[in-house]
Amino acid sequence: MGSGAIGLYYGALLQRSGHEVLFLMRSDLERARERGVRVMRNEGDFSLEKVAAFGDPGEIGVCDLVIVSIKATANHALKSLLPPLVGSGTRLLTLQNGLGNDRLLAELFPSNSVSGGLCFVCLNRVEPAVVQNFMKGSVSIGPFAPEYAADAEDLVSVFSEAGVKTRFEENLSGIQWKKLVWNVPFNGLAIAAGGVCTDVIVESPELCAEAKALMEEIIEAAGVLGYEFSEGFADYQIEITRPMGAYRPSSMIDFVDGRPVEVEAIWGEPLRQATAAGVSMPKLETLYALLKQLCA
Amino acid sequence: MGSGAIGLYYGALLQRSGHEVLFLMRSDLERARERGVRVMRNEGDFSLEKVAAFGDPGEIGVCDLVIVSIKATANHALKSLLPPLVGSGTRLLTLQNGLGNDRLLAELFPSNSVSGGLCFVCLNRVEPAVVQNFMKGSVSIGPFAPEYAADAEDLVSVFSEAGVKTRFEENLSGIQWKKLVWNVPFNGLAIAAGGVCTDVIVESPELCAEAKALMEEIIEAAGVLGYEFSEGFADYQIEITRPMGAYRPSSMIDFVDGRPVEVEAIWGEPLRQATAAGVSMPKLETLYALLKQLCA
Repeated sequence: MGSGAIGLYYGALLQRSGHEVLFLMRSDLERARERGVRVMRNEGDFSLEKVAAFGDPGEIGVCDLVIVSIKATANHALKSLLPPLVGSGTRLLTLQNGLGNDRLLAELFPSNSVSGGLCFVCLNRVEPAVVQNFMKGSVSIGPFAPEYAADAEDLVSVFSEAGVKTRFEENLSGIQWKKLVWNVPFNGLAIAAGGVCTDVIVESPELCAEAKALMEEIIEAAGVLGYEFSEGFADYQIEITRPMGAYRPSSMIDFVDGRPVEVEAIWGEPLRQATAAGVSMPKLETLYALLKQLCA
Repeated sequence: MGSGAIGLYYGALLQRSGHEVLFLMRSDLERARERGVRVMRNEGDFSLEKVAAFGDPGEIGVCDLVIVSIKATANHALKSLLPPLVGSGTRLLTLQNGLGNDRLLAELFPSNSVSGGLCFVCLNRVEPAVVQNFMKGSVSIGPFAPEYAADAEDLVSVFSEAGVKTRFEENLSGIQWKKLVWNVPFNGLAIAAGGVCTDVIVESPELCAEAKALMEEIIEAAGVLGYEFSEGFADYQIEITRPMGAYRPSSMIDFVDGRPVEVEAIWGEPLRQATAAGVSMPKLETLYALLKQLCA
């Protein structure tokens, strides 16, 4: 579901490894029907000349697995998009950014198996139905609740067999918080500082200090919620960002291009979860207030 | 010195009340020489058909009083602009925004009398040498150091006789901090939230909470530095801002129009003074980091 970079890329890899993949698309639909889906990457480009692409979930019907890869800003549409696809045995996997997406699926379908996956990968949808992959990266998949652990492990096999380096993670929320340690400061400050690349943030003493302070808030909140990261994790995040150079975080690209930004999933929901747990996050509060207005 | 709204307006009022005023101008010079200076205001417009306008301080020579009303972002030019105007008996008055301007004058001319004035007024320079006044407002003048108190009181008389409601303030730094309680959040958030008016800030629960948190940081820092404000001062600042409606803070106008913004005087210097006094201002730190980048 969703023909952004994530949906196109993993959908194409799964079809290529022998699965029957039905793409639910909107903007890329016509192009995908005419010419299929193309993946460009360092280890060799490939095309799927024929893909089963649909504009309406009613044409697809009940699936074994629904992979949700629409933007979290469109989550309000899931209530009407998902029911035709979900039967009693359907498993759901969200590959979306931020917090709250897996919970939403579990609330919509309380008796279905729900997992979440975090994609550590560099992808760009360069034109309709064409996706470019810069770094092969990896995917971490974990269950929304312990009873879905076996299903999540099964999904790890499915992705692994499709050539994706995939890891099983028992604690889905923990790795979601872990990914936020980078996403909250770098995606957020890149927007709030006027649409800058990550190099501007790490090279400015003031902005780099803000990035680190935001990371420490996230790490502290995650700790209170039961997710511990290794000593020096914030500094490590800064260090791995330096060699990225003038990297444009995905939310900043969305912002600059005037597309919706996942403000609630990436900044709002962590703030709310931390506040509910009694943790104060003054820096995130400021960033969220600004982003909510900037991306409105 | 300086033909922005402040310089034109108070210069015109002083000349109108009988003082010999010599305007140092750059962009407005030609127009002022041709057609004088015009002031538009509710209680009656007036024009000075002839003004003494100069482009070079060397043509002016030593003055009794130098009123500095250039943007604080151009303070680096004072070192070369001021010496021709300042003799042993010359008094200096800065009407600039933020902190640090009076100290700079005192450092440049340690044996001259230095005062500072805060203008609580709504002015717009609508075209070269034409200034519009919306609210008569008031000016508070205080001495940089206690030994200049008599001079500051004298300046209060000069401004009062020119029809300006003017108050003597013994403690110049105190009222500068007091003015920052409004300027720091509203000018700052108006820029950082994307160039919004004050109504957007007071009507957004998140941004209004940020404004109040910034005010409380300023009030706390001012308190540690010895400047106490009345109980409930932050709430009062929010309340007086509501009836302003879609007011555009001056720094936001500068930002949107691509002119330099007084980032150091309004946000950087208070942060540095508070830090030096051992007060932590996490919200101001974030705002300053963003503004420094946004206005670079």
